[in-house]
Amino acid sequence: MKKISIGLIGYGVVGSGVIKLLQKKKNYIKDKFGTEFLVKTICDRSIHKKNTSGLAATKFTTDIDEVLHDKSIHVVIELIGGLNPAQKIVTNALQNGKHVITANKSLLAQHGKELFQLAAEKGRHLYFESSVGAGIPIIQTIMKGIAGNTFHGLYGIINGTCNFILTEMTKNRCSFSEALSEAKKRGYAESDPTLDINGMDSTHKLAILIYLAFGKFIKINDIYTEGISHISHDDIEHAESLNLSIKLLAIAKKTKGKIEARVHPTLISKDHPLASINGIFNAIYLDADPLGDVLLSGEGAGQMAAASGVVSDLINLSSHETIPQLQKSLCHEDKTLKTQTIDQIKTKFYLRFMATDRPGVLSKITGILGQHDISINSVTQKVHNNASFVPVIMLTDYTNEKNLRVALDKIQRLPVVKSKPVAIRMEKLS
Amino acid sequence: MKKISIGLIGYGVVGSGVIKLLQKKKNYIKDKFGTEFLVKTICDRSIHKKNTSGLAATKFTTDIDEVLHDKSIHVVIELIGGLNPAQKIVTNALQNGKHVITANKSLLAQHGKELFQLAAEKGRHLYFESSVGAGIPIIQTIMKGIAGNTFHGLYGIINGTCNFILTEMTKNRCSFSEALSEAKKRGYAESDPTLDINGMDSTHKLAILIYLAFGKFIKINDIYTEGISHISHDDIEHAESLNLSIKLLAIAKKTKGKIEARVHPTLISKDHPLASINGIFNAIYLDADPLGDVLLSGEGAGQMAAASGVVSDLINLSSHETIPQLQKSLCHEDKTLKTQTIDQIKTKFYLRFMATDRPGVLSKITGILGQHDISINSVTQKVHNNASFVPVIMLTDYTNEKNLRVALDKIQRLPVVKSKPVAIRMEKLS
Repeated sequence: MKKISIGLIGYGVVGSGVIKLLQKKKNYIKDKFGTEFLVKTICDRSIHKKNTSGLAATKFTTDIDEVLHDKSIHVVIELIGGLNPAQKIVTNALQNGKHVITANKSLLAQHGKELFQLAAEKGRHLYFESSVGAGIPIIQTIMKGIAGNTFHGLYGIINGTCNFILTEMTKNRCSFSEALSEAKKRGYAESDPTLDINGMDSTHKLAILIYLAFGKFIKINDIYTEGISHISHDDIEHAESLNLSIKLLAIAKKTKGKIEARVHPTLISKDHPLASINGIFNAIYLDADPLGDVLLSGEGAGQMAAASGVVSDLINLSSHETIPQLQKSLCHEDKTLKTQTIDQIKTKFYLRFMATDRPGVLSKITGILGQHDISINSVTQKVHNNASFVPVIMLTDYTNEKNLRVALDKIQRLPVVKSKPVAIRMEKLS
Repeated sequence: MKKISIGLIGYGVVGSGVIKLLQKKKNYIKDKFGTEFLVKTICDRSIHKKNTSGLAATKFTTDIDEVLHDKSIHVVIELIGGLNPAQKIVTNALQNGKHVITANKSLLAQHGKELFQLAAEKGRHLYFESSVGAGIPIIQTIMKGIAGNTFHGLYGIINGTCNFILTEMTKNRCSFSEALSEAKKRGYAESDPTLDINGMDSTHKLAILIYLAFGKFIKINDIYTEGISHISHDDIEHAESLNLSIKLLAIAKKTKGKIEARVHPTLISKDHPLASINGIFNAIYLDADPLGDVLLSGEGAGQMAAASGVVSDLINLSSHETIPQLQKSLCHEDKTLKTQTIDQIKTKFYLRFMATDRPGVLSKITGILGQHDISINSVTQKVHNNASFVPVIMLTDYTNEKNLRVALDKIQRLPVVKSKPVAIRMEKLS
């Protein structure tokens, strides 16, 4: 029986889930994988406030050095999140010859490159399945499951909070703030949900996926990021009538040596499988060569879903005696790949204007769009009930982002148009 | 640079796809994985009829021993299918110290147990990703991606031919035989499609998945198997109006130490993600503990999809210098698990009777069902156009299979009922 000693840093929701899971599956893991995981030390800055009963064999501390300098610990599990002191913990653990498992998306998105290199230099494993989509094996699928494939594109619903809110708004015809309250009530949104709602959580995860799929360490600031707080129920309803569903998508595409990366609310056809990924479920949709379209979905958040990813990492890591080539392959970078800014990208748009219901208004709006080289594929004017402003919905052809911005700015200043026009990107998924 | 010598046995559609893919991705694989794959020998009984131009460095033969006894070959790829001589090839290759990759579902379904044991004894890898769902990483996901999870159930659409036919019948309102002709025309059905259509292909794949997920080597004959050739367009249409979709599902569930395994046409809610897996796409839906529901889908057939799985196996296999514990875990069996026969299983049913439209007919039918302890959840009598027999659709509650069979037999003999009643199982997926 192989025995692996673990030092766990961060005993919060996920950390305690990992301990619970290791206890529950102890015999199964011993029988099937011939390995016994021993939790030697748990470090948490408020360990004394936490319930540690039933963990008699484990040492508790608030001092990370008691984990990092303990020669008997083989694997450090970092679950505190954020950059500081997580960066120091992971770096020191690898330098001290320990394997590392982390679920820290912001750390890997910003310092993954040097950490993967350090792990390869030191001949140690660095596993991170739970950093994207919790226990859904997205990382393993890209790295190993379909190894040998290259990628044309990837499309992810990788923030459960946003997906829950958008599903709720669609299903219950409620506003963003009502859906957010419901998410908080059910424990699907943190007390400060800013990083989820403004898209940054998805951006961090997208940066990791781009590195795995395209071999490019993209800067967070090079990923165009737009959150969901400006989405109104009206637009969801108009979109539904056009057979479109709204999702916060993390998108990366590679075309002719260039990569585009963006996170924003996106309208997709209701017939595409991603459109039926609802609630807190996450999904990743890969356009792989030669395999074609691959979809992977599951619960992308929650204590036990995240713990599942960490325990899978532990089993996979401990099942390899040498550091396999796949770990080293993480250091493979495609240095020729250029990043495109959002202004260089062309997408189709859903536009909504609130305009007066008078002859000539449509021609004014389409005239300005035409001047900026924006073609319209369809126009729908919604039924009005003597309202002074009625919604006009237009779907554009592929449009340069910059042109559109300038045109919308001009249209907004027309006296016949009320309030800021709404513009939501559309994506045609195969 | 690591160099791995390959002996390929079976140079048909998939075999030539593997060679094509290795050539196309040669530089990518070298750069990223530090490995060069050299195809030393290709063996095929009709090699002389095949196009082997552009493969100058490779030796061609019709004699399997030129692969099996060549000490310089590290990995044997077996792609001939069937039991004989595939069983001998895989066995001898492992005995001669070679790693093996196979896509042979019928071999693994029937002799997997001894082959996995032989591989473990000999310290060699036996990889088989393409045996189920071609390159969709179903095998890796269960074995590694979510290692540490146990399973309550698995539900697979794992035969592309059947899924294409059922999709075609639904979409184009055509008959089974029309849809089958279309499948043949498009190359989605073999000239003899018997094993696809009668469900046996799915049964072989299900046996492999059951072993991976539940650690039980189930006998093929213990898996209840029913094909799709008796499905009529009428039933698809009636089901649609009840918000149900029809799929050939491979189902395995574990409850209280017992396992049930079956392959049959199944009605599922149109709202479930599996219902939107159409055409030649395959999908597997896992009910995992603690991860919850996981869905994996993609193209489950075709030259390059299958080649993708073989090449992923090659990369994964060659990336590990020692035989990892995960390979050995394939020999872990749960000997306490009992298999249930179809007669011991309870399912809900969709029933269709063609009955005369006269008072008292419904009560006769429901009377017989009641006598056999079969509860009805809903009855729909379809509109009639002066036809002498009209369809009566009933959805039952959970029903013992044996009771239902006896009841249907009695009902069929009623003078007011025309032809054999139709019974299709329904499955409630969470």
